Amino acid sequence: MAKKTSKKIAPKSAKSGGKRVHFFGNGKAEGMAVAKTEGERKMILGGKGAGLADMTSAGLPVPPGFTISIPCCEEYYILGRKLSEQTKKEVLENLAKVEAAMGKKLGDANDPLLVSVRSGAARSMPGMMETILNLGLNDKSVQGLAGKTDNPRFAYDSYRRFIQMYSTTAMGLSKEPMEDLLHAMKHKLGVKTDPEIPAESLKELCEQFKAFYKEKKGADFPQNPIDQLWGAIMAVFGSWEADKAQTYRRVEKITELKGTGVNVQTMVYGNKGDKSGTGVCFTRDPNTGENTFYGDYLINAQGEDVVAGIRTPLKLSTLDDKLPKAYKELCAVRKQLEKHYKDMQDLEFTVEDEKLYMLQCRSGKRSPVATFKIAVDMVNEKLLTKEEAIARITPEDIERLFYPVIDPKLDRKTLTKLATGIDAVPGAASGRVAFNAADAEARAAKGEKVILVRKETSPEDVGGMHAAQGILTATGGKTSHAAVVARGWGKCCIVGCEVLRINYETGVMTVGDKTVKAGDFLTLDGGTGEVFLGELTLKAPEQPPAYQILMKWCDAIRTLKVRANADTPYDAENAIKMGAEGIGLTRTEHMFFDTEERRLAIQEMIVADTLVARKAALAKLLPFQREDFVGIFTAMDGKPVTIRLVDPPLHEFTPKDDAGVNKLSQITGISAADIRHRCEQLHESNPMLGHRGCRLCITYPEILDMQVTAIIEAAIAVAKKGIKVFPEIMIPLTMDKKELQIQVTQARALADGLIKAAKSKVKYMLGTMIEVPRAALLADKIAEVAEFFSFGTNDLTQMTMGLSRDDAGRFLPVYVATEKDGGVGIFKADPFQALDQDGVGLLVKLGIEKGRSTNPKLKVGICGEHGGESSSVKFCHKIGMNYVSCSPYRVPIARLAAAQAVIADKKSKK
Amino acid sequence: MAKKTSKKIAPKSAKSGGKRVHFFGNGKAEGMAVAKTEGERKMILGGKGAGLADMTSAGLPVPPGFTISIPCCEEYYILGRKLSEQTKKEVLENLAKVEAAMGKKLGDANDPLLVSVRSGAARSMPGMMETILNLGLNDKSVQGLAGKTDNPRFAYDSYRRFIQMYSTTAMGLSKEPMEDLLHAMKHKLGVKTDPEIPAESLKELCEQFKAFYKEKKGADFPQNPIDQLWGAIMAVFGSWEADKAQTYRRVEKITELKGTGVNVQTMVYGNKGDKSGTGVCFTRDPNTGENTFYGDYLINAQGEDVVAGIRTPLKLSTLDDKLPKAYKELCAVRKQLEKHYKDMQDLEFTVEDEKLYMLQCRSGKRSPVATFKIAVDMVNEKLLTKEEAIARITPEDIERLFYPVIDPKLDRKTLTKLATGIDAVPGAASGRVAFNAADAEARAAKGEKVILVRKETSPEDVGGMHAAQGILTATGGKTSHAAVVARGWGKCCIVGCEVLRINYETGVMTVGDKTVKAGDFLTLDGGTGEVFLGELTLKAPEQPPAYQILMKWCDAIRTLKVRANADTPYDAENAIKMGAEGIGLTRTEHMFFDTEERRLAIQEMIVADTLVARKAALAKLLPFQREDFVGIFTAMDGKPVTIRLVDPPLHEFTPKDDAGVNKLSQITGISAADIRHRCEQLHESNPMLGHRGCRLCITYPEILDMQVTAIIEAAIAVAKKGIKVFPEIMIPLTMDKKELQIQVTQARALADGLIKAAKSKVKYMLGTMIEVPRAALLADKIAEVAEFFSFGTNDLTQMTMGLSRDDAGRFLPVYVATEKDGGVGIFKADPFQALDQDGVGLLVKLGIEKGRSTNPKLKVGICGEHGGESSSVKFCHKIGMNYVSCSPYRVPIARLAAAQAVIADKKSKK
Repeated sequence: MAKKTSKKIAPKSAKSGGKRVHFFGNGKAEGMAVAKTEGERKMILGGKGAGLADMTSAGLPVPPGFTISIPCCEEYYILGRKLSEQTKKEVLENLAKVEAAMGKKLGDANDPLLVSVRSGAARSMPGMMETILNLGLNDKSVQGLAGKTDNPRFAYDSYRRFIQMYSTTAMGLSKEPMEDLLHAMKHKLGVKTDPEIPAESLKELCEQFKAFYKEKKGADFPQNPIDQLWGAIMAVFGSWEADKAQTYRRVEKITELKGTGVNVQTMVYGNKGDKSGTGVCFTRDPNTGENTFYGDYLINAQGEDVVAGIRTPLKLSTLDDKLPKAYKELCAVRKQLEKHYKDMQDLEFTVEDEKLYMLQCRSGKRSPVATFKIAVDMVNEKLLTKEEAIARITPEDIERLFYPVIDPKLDRKTLTKLATGIDAVPGAASGRVAFNAADAEARAAKGEKVILVRKETSPEDVGGMHAAQGILTATGGKTSHAAVVARGWGKCCIVGCEVLRINYETGVMTVGDKTVKAGDFLTLDGGTGEVFLGELTLKAPEQPPAYQILMKWCDAIRTLKVRANADTPYDAENAIKMGAEGIGLTRTEHMFFDTEERRLAIQEMIVADTLVARKAALAKLLPFQREDFVGIFTAMDGKPVTIRLVDPPLHEFTPKDDAGVNKLSQITGISAADIRHRCEQLHESNPMLGHRGCRLCITYPEILDMQVTAIIEAAIAVAKKGIKVFPEIMIPLTMDKKELQIQVTQARALADGLIKAAKSKVKYMLGTMIEVPRAALLADKIAEVAEFFSFGTNDLTQMTMGLSRDDAGRFLPVYVATEKDGGVGIFKADPFQALDQDGVGLLVKLGIEKGRSTNPKLKVGICGEHGGESSSVKFCHKIGMNYVSCSPYRVPIARLAAAQAVIADKKSKK
Repeated sequence: MAKKTSKKIAPKSAKSGGKRVHFFGNGKAEGMAVAKTEGERKMILGGKGAGLADMTSAGLPVPPGFTISIPCCEEYYILGRKLSEQTKKEVLENLAKVEAAMGKKLGDANDPLLVSVRSGAARSMPGMMETILNLGLNDKSVQGLAGKTDNPRFAYDSYRRFIQMYSTTAMGLSKEPMEDLLHAMKHKLGVKTDPEIPAESLKELCEQFKAFYKEKKGADFPQNPIDQLWGAIMAVFGSWEADKAQTYRRVEKITELKGTGVNVQTMVYGNKGDKSGTGVCFTRDPNTGENTFYGDYLINAQGEDVVAGIRTPLKLSTLDDKLPKAYKELCAVRKQLEKHYKDMQDLEFTVEDEKLYMLQCRSGKRSPVATFKIAVDMVNEKLLTKEEAIARITPEDIERLFYPVIDPKLDRKTLTKLATGIDAVPGAASGRVAFNAADAEARAAKGEKVILVRKETSPEDVGGMHAAQGILTATGGKTSHAAVVARGWGKCCIVGCEVLRINYETGVMTVGDKTVKAGDFLTLDGGTGEVFLGELTLKAPEQPPAYQILMKWCDAIRTLKVRANADTPYDAENAIKMGAEGIGLTRTEHMFFDTEERRLAIQEMIVADTLVARKAALAKLLPFQREDFVGIFTAMDGKPVTIRLVDPPLHEFTPKDDAGVNKLSQITGISAADIRHRCEQLHESNPMLGHRGCRLCITYPEILDMQVTAIIEAAIAVAKKGIKVFPEIMIPLTMDKKELQIQVTQARALADGLIKAAKSKVKYMLGTMIEVPRAALLADKIAEVAEFFSFGTNDLTQMTMGLSRDDAGRFLPVYVATEKDGGVGIFKADPFQALDQDGVGLLVKLGIEKGRSTNPKLKVGICGEHGGESSSVKFCHKIGMNYVSCSPYRVPIARLAAAQAVIADKKSKK
């Protein structure tokens, strides 16, 4: 699909005069002044920059540096990928401050200052943007570094890493040739790992790399450190618009960010020897939420080695043995930061010659279970109020809680276990193996479930990771790229499964004598790290205690009731388990499909050509419907049950094949040809706007009679057993008061007659769905004859926006996608997922106001799928609905959103 | 389709204490007091009763009598078809007044008072309800009448007529057996006409009739005149609900009436001999509107003989010779009544022994031409103001003006004329012959055009008459049943075509040696009374001068502009002829279907799978579109032309057969299979709500480029020739401000560029259709980027009401039809014909208010089919639109309605 490029709307640029670059070091951070709150600072400094400023001013050991703010990145793009003179000026000023703080100069031949250059957007995008380390090295300063540290191997290893990173990241050369040179060197030396390469060989590698650079770029590798700095800064800015970063933002629905900040920071070295190391840790266990210190580190390594997952790291608890001083300091930092941020933190640290340096601090990603455990624990620890804890939970946290586990009934001993890896993200997944992202995406597009199996993942794999049900890697730890990304999505992930022998070229993986080909089934248990052959049955998990506690807090706060949509006694029971306070929508027509007997009865009704024949067919359906209602009423035990009378157009029930037609012909005695003719007659050009909903009962009032009889007889029967019952009969697709009045009058006469004849005291209500725009516009009239309204926002959205849900796939994605993603960004979200508050919402609000203007007692709810979507539920609260109703599975999300709406209310009133 | 019977809603009954029965006679009429205005009096007394009261109090010679008011009829039905005691009491009191006025007694054996009993509803329903004459005759009083008049023949003729009418009308016996007895008597006597039967034989006939009555009813024919009176009154009330009356009201859309009045009036006799007669006349010629006295009469006849059309009557102008005194009096009456009613009147009179009596006076039905001529003449005669004249015209009057005539280019000499009859209603019609109403309706239902041919028509034939294109009868005059009914509908009608020999049984008609069978084609010229064999070409007629004058008056009064929908230069020229002040809707896609070359180019665009290929196909369409626009702009000569960009979903343009697919494959080099696949891909579940309108230009912006280029290049070219040009580019199906803004920005950049490059000064506007409910709801936002709104009320109705126009036929008729007609009466009119003011109209009003709130200069119009429907146009005026646009043919109707809206405005402000 082509799209028109419209003029780029200029983003807010860095105001001239305003400070653009912010120094941090020596316990002071200029960046703290850019805004009052952490959140606002992040929008200017980026997450990493804000964290560095925060840690610095909190007195933590942060190597000095400066942050180039996000507005500079916006400006960079406005100027056509150029740095402004003002930015450059401030960078140089701040560089001078760093040099002063460290007593070293960038490029100094004797004792050079080396810096890292890292990206940092307002939201974490792990591994998506570029980092360059060891900047400042050149042919001369590398010698100074070697001399000053008395460690030539360290100096040349740093230099070759810098040349590699700079050449690929800043200058766009491909990675493989230099990796090949490195491997060749190891091969020549007969060594296996990088640390085994001696200084001289590293020096030789540096020469090879520079020669390669010159061959490719036609110029010498830049020796001027300031030139290196500009190149690195621009590389970071440029990485904001790289494909992988754009894909990540699209997948994560990150739309509000304008660019990235750049952090230039004095290098510290975890790779200086055995008293050095580097690590990544979480202040609590990100998988279970336990209040234990959790992380990985590597001795004698740079940070990238841990994150990339190339070497399998050590558990943090062992650091106390290896570097006890640093470990103690780190524990103190952990406490201080949790108290400060009131949240579990994700930290990066480096120990250089036993001295601890903090390099990063941010809110840590965590598993759904951990999310609830941490929130509830922090309330108990008085770090948070209940309201703060609730406000922090997202709908996705709940969704992910319900991710499946391997059926507990399966005897694990009977399963064929392929291997056990590191349990990076819990949950289970089953699917066909894909060995690369493209294959994973292709299989998913065909509707297959996929397990992505990789040696290690990199940001290029994000699309395939998202498409997969689960991820399995041969290398890496719990903080590797695969683990971090998968955890963010709550997607089952096993890493460091080192026994896997993967051959990408042949598409085959072996473990001992077992062979797995692309397309074969695997099942992962992310909770145990086990990998099984074949497709195992998955089940919904048990709900953890912290979740139950937090949801009770939500229930205590919220004022909006939450019901579920349920069509069967089974659904109804499930709805109650999920916390539903009633049923907001029972679709009676689903009952017609249940068995062949029922299908034939409804078909008989449809092909009947006389009232008598139609009534006879309906009489066959009556006991089925009554029986279903008895089950539902019994399950709901006095909670209200809204039953919608038949809604879809009749052609949805007609036989779809010859066998069906013949069977119906046999039963009815109507010829097959006549039946086919009748079915064809039912075809509609726009069935959405056709002969359906209450229009069916206007033309065939005997259908209403049958359904109301079934409902009321069921209610009477259940009530007789001493069970409370409260049916709400709902008439769909109303567009006019008189239309509703005719049916309400008919239904009430019938229902009251049945109740009186049975000497029962059953109470019931009669109301309508508001799903046609006209009904919302005339809600004041309609409310005169309705006891309740239930907004059917699925259809209301279709009609109000003129969008057929079935067809909108052709163009709606273009409307929703941003310009950068090839769309036009007309809507912020798919209006069938999140209620279009501006348009459809306006009509809903108007409908409620008008309805209550003539009927102040009017009960109002929503039963479209929006009833289980967080932003929509909050809107429903705001406009004064009595309840929302959604699928049982989404009931907890609605409960949470309803509580959050109350909290937001209070906040806005403060 | 079954329908539920709902409780009958009780009509307003005659208030006890209020007067129910109203005397008139001797220059005084009690009925004048029931209400102040003629219109209100009609609602209580009925049209006939009000006319009799009016004429009586005006001093005209009206035989004394009394009117039983319409509320008594309502009461009659509420009581289960019974007369209340109060009504009976007042009838007897008033009968006594009549007896006193006449000095005679009902049933008196020597000199009996005889009365007629006639129906009279508030609106004329000619021939639909019952009349009984000569009531009061019995075996004794007939002798008294014979003695008193010294005319036994007259007395027994009157008695036998009374027995016939009473037996059939009041007692429900069938007509044929008594007609057979009458024929048998004539046969026995060897005479041909009724007047030739001598008194003795008539007396014998009376005995035969009474014997027949006794045989059938098991009782003697009622001899008590009071019993006769009750029977007759109940017969009239009962006739209100007779099938034929209900059919007539449905056809005429009469819904507001509650029942009929009954007029009991002293009999006067046109059948007393050669100095007596009876007639029906119009104060002006109802066909041409000429200010001449016009009518028919028969000497020695009763009124029913004239109306039934059994005897062919004489022209009124000859009455001066036969009964000069009565004629002079009648001419005076004519003048007096026209002055009084300020309208052409339809009169019934009887001359008894040279004395004139007036029996009825009502506003006369007239041809469309006459409608305009009379209205304009009366303004010139100072009887009416221009505003009164305009207010009196109906949309149907205009529609009927445009009924066809036989193509004037046909040489009449070459046509095969079958016969010439009386030119009862002008206009021409062509169709297949049907000899009975059922056949006419059946053929029409199949889509055939029908000419109904009958010896004479009766109220039972109304359904078939309505279904037919034209009506031809062998008997009857211009005031016969066929002529009056057809004239009311403006339907071509020829009566009194006595040469026709029709055999109903064989379904064959002969004229001399020519034979016409049922199903053969006939063409009628209602203007000349000629009947031609075969199907002749019909053409639109010339517009009469009075019509032109009246429309100019409308134009001077109205404030709402009227435009036309036109897609071609031909349409545009026609629109101007019809008085359009611009084009409100040019559908550009219609241009794509025009030639194979164009069709192929658009198809090529659709199957193109690259932007380049799509642009190449569009480039082929560009010159065609430009050429069309040049034609339209030239025709409109500076009047605004609103051009809608492509609107329908692309699948409407795809090839529909193998030949089309192959041709397209040949041109594009794309395989036929691929083309078919692409076409199938375009299928939509609900195309109305699919990928269409401006959604196409959001996904394919190059289509917008092509269309805007064609429009602006055409405008520049036309402007260069010195012709003024004002295009308004209209973007359809907008649902969001940003969506519109993207396209407006794109179009404006392109258009301004073209205009600047051509150094032209062409002005244009950019606006949108409001047809999606969301657009109306967010009109304040959308108006910020639109210069005009055009409400597309066809689609807006579909979406607001959730009604697919293509599918609504299954149930909408039930919604619109009244309960009596098997419907439920939810809507007063089909919302696709007359704008649903309550619902859709509310949204339109809201849209205008919101739109003007942010853009006070916003130009607002309507371009749905409602723009040519009278009540909708008046609504558009009321809510402040700038213009309406409709099909050229309906432009005059919109002009009239717009003027009437202003007049109604002024009236309501008084």
